[in-house]
Amino acid sequence: MPHIDLPTDAPGIGGLFRYRPQTALPMSQLAEVLLRGEHSLSRGERELIATYVSSLNDCGFCSRSHAAFAAAQLPGGMDLVCQVADDPDGAPVSDKLKALLEIAGAVQRGGLEVTPDHVEAARKSGATDLEIHDTVLIAAAFCMYNRYVDGLAALTPEEPAVYKTIADRIVNRGYMTIAPAGPTG
Amino acid sequence: MPHIDLPTDAPGIGGLFRYRPQTALPMSQLAEVLLRGEHSLSRGERELIATYVSSLNDCGFCSRSHAAFAAAQLPGGMDLVCQVADDPDGAPVSDKLKALLEIAGAVQRGGLEVTPDHVEAARKSGATDLEIHDTVLIAAAFCMYNRYVDGLAALTPEEPAVYKTIADRIVNRGYMTIAPAGPTG
Repeated sequence: MPHIDLPTDAPGIGGLFRYRPQTALPMSQLAEVLLRGEHSLSRGERELIATYVSSLNDCGFCSRSHAAFAAAQLPGGMDLVCQVADDPDGAPVSDKLKALLEIAGAVQRGGLEVTPDHVEAARKSGATDLEIHDTVLIAAAFCMYNRYVDGLAALTPEEPAVYKTIADRIVNRGYMTIAPAGPTG
Repeated sequence: MPHIDLPTDAPGIGGLFRYRPQTALPMSQLAEVLLRGEHSLSRGERELIATYVSSLNDCGFCSRSHAAFAAAQLPGGMDLVCQVADDPDGAPVSDKLKALLEIAGAVQRGGLEVTPDHVEAARKSGATDLEIHDTVLIAAAFCMYNRYVDGLAALTPEEPAVYKTIADRIVNRGYMTIAPAGPTG
């Protein structure tokens, strides 16, 4: 049960966004830029980073949601997403993505955990400054979204169909559809 | 030295915001709503929560900046800010603020650390749902800002005068002055 009186007809962060539209708007805009804006990392790769961090933070709602968003946008589908969540270094992804996932894991533990060696390894595998920047910020942002959802005990549905429905909307129409001020979902 | 090539004329998150204006805008808007919007918690009290979390995350730039912003907006000044950072339970603040700081400390460890007992204690001391919500989100958001600043090793000046100058701007003109798209600082 949520810690505060939230709308019951929207699960996870959707209920929180309806409760507080003023903060929902910039939080949705940030997700839209980071995870769906024009980028040299694909949308699926960026959702993988979000899923990995949410999984490290044990956030059931976010890890299941973003796993569904990543699976829908990657050729390897949910099998690949699960492999990355379990063992990013052994998963069949590029060396660059492995190095970026390593940075994301460090950020999840704390900002000071990111070392020059992490960054050097990412650069050697071909990562650009912008890719390193956005990986750090995606990981940091999910340390916020995850704590927001679980810190208020937002509703976390068990039914896989719920996550499939949310994924259809986010993948096709983007994060602004969950901001109350955005286009209706 | 920063992990990526950042502008050298803006310290801390200011340099990151110049590097990536697209994410700076929603991140500044979120801070403006949470820390300066109309609220039953004063701006100083909200900055105290931000300072406490930044201090728990060992983020030198954010803890020094927000300590300066809090001190400028609280009758107790920097003495009170230091007392709260060292020992929130023993500091001369209201029982409500102590209970909210306890929630913020739980969020800093992880979203799942917030228990119904924490929330019940805050309610008994007079906290509203919105105050509990915003405390959780301020704490969660600073787990992002702190990781963003330290995860990219943004410049952290030693000189107290730097933080005094930033505080003058933020306290008088708000967080949109650090977004590159916002009014010039």
